[in-house]
Amino acid sequence: MTMEEKTMKTERVYEGKIINLRVDTVELPDKKYSKREIVEHSGAVGIIALTDSGNIVLVKQFRKPVEDSLLEIPAGKIEKDEEADACALRELEEETGYRTSNMQKLISFYTTPGFSNEVIHLYLALDLDKGIATPDEDEYIEVVELSIQDALEMIELGEIKDAKTIIGILTANQRFLKKANS
Amino acid sequence: MTMEEKTMKTERVYEGKIINLRVDTVELPDKKYSKREIVEHSGAVGIIALTDSGNIVLVKQFRKPVEDSLLEIPAGKIEKDEEADACALRELEEETGYRTSNMQKLISFYTTPGFSNEVIHLYLALDLDKGIATPDEDEYIEVVELSIQDALEMIELGEIKDAKTIIGILTANQRFLKKANS
Repeated sequence: MTMEEKTMKTERVYEGKIINLRVDTVELPDKKYSKREIVEHSGAVGIIALTDSGNIVLVKQFRKPVEDSLLEIPAGKIEKDEEADACALRELEEETGYRTSNMQKLISFYTTPGFSNEVIHLYLALDLDKGIATPDEDEYIEVVELSIQDALEMIELGEIKDAKTIIGILTANQRFLKKANS
Repeated sequence: MTMEEKTMKTERVYEGKIINLRVDTVELPDKKYSKREIVEHSGAVGIIALTDSGNIVLVKQFRKPVEDSLLEIPAGKIEKDEEADACALRELEEETGYRTSNMQKLISFYTTPGFSNEVIHLYLALDLDKGIATPDEDEYIEVVELSIQDALEMIELGEIKDAKTIIGILTANQRFLKKANS
């Protein structure tokens, strides 16, 4: 059984600043047709930035879609012709002021493959040097540093509720546990 | 400094089956205006289903937005007037055939708060009874059971790349580590 869904028709609905929307008519394996609503996104990076004392660096900002201020790992959209690595260094410095020459790629994941192609590339940043944050002009960002233990508790309590941030904190914790056991 | 963004205008772009799209014009704290593209979603559930032998139950299905077949935890959209708990039981049985009376809510998280209000409620299902899977007619689903250790390796290797699934596997692992240490 082939699992693929062949595109029979594409309707472009919206072209925006961060996202586009299209609706594909697809042919299913049983030859029936169905519609797929697809939000196009150019991809993003997220950074697990750990200070020398082992704290994780988060940013708090208002998110209009959920009408709430959320604690998140530093993150941002990859710009046109930008490499993901360069984007991660740029976003970390813009949002938190931290610079580093010790940044490594961990994993990439899809945030919502049911309706979007957005991929987030997750980086680990160590050996941080404090500089000055320079967020975009429509970004109002507060930097918050937490111990991994506190961050884990805030996930359990529902006080940290952004998916990429939960992945970042659980990954940082797992890394520590591995180190501790090795 | 208030972090809120006041809605000055809302333009409804698209009303669909799974998502809607609107564009809000907002007033920032410095009184300047900006646009926010917002994908509306009614919310979903995801289920960490663990067999008596400690394996995690995943489903593999083709995801048109990323043109790939992904391994994911069982999950699905909350239907109109449906409770999240009931949705979790329904989706688990439809997608995997497993039934249980031992399901507990863990956490809720936003998948992409930068451009969508989608929330996923994450459940833990234990004491599974095998029945018969009955997926929706446009779903082609294969059930895959993995040890947590194998699942963790597949995350590191980039073979499991769905955000909610990564959260589910890391959470299941953390739960085991906690138990092992207590």
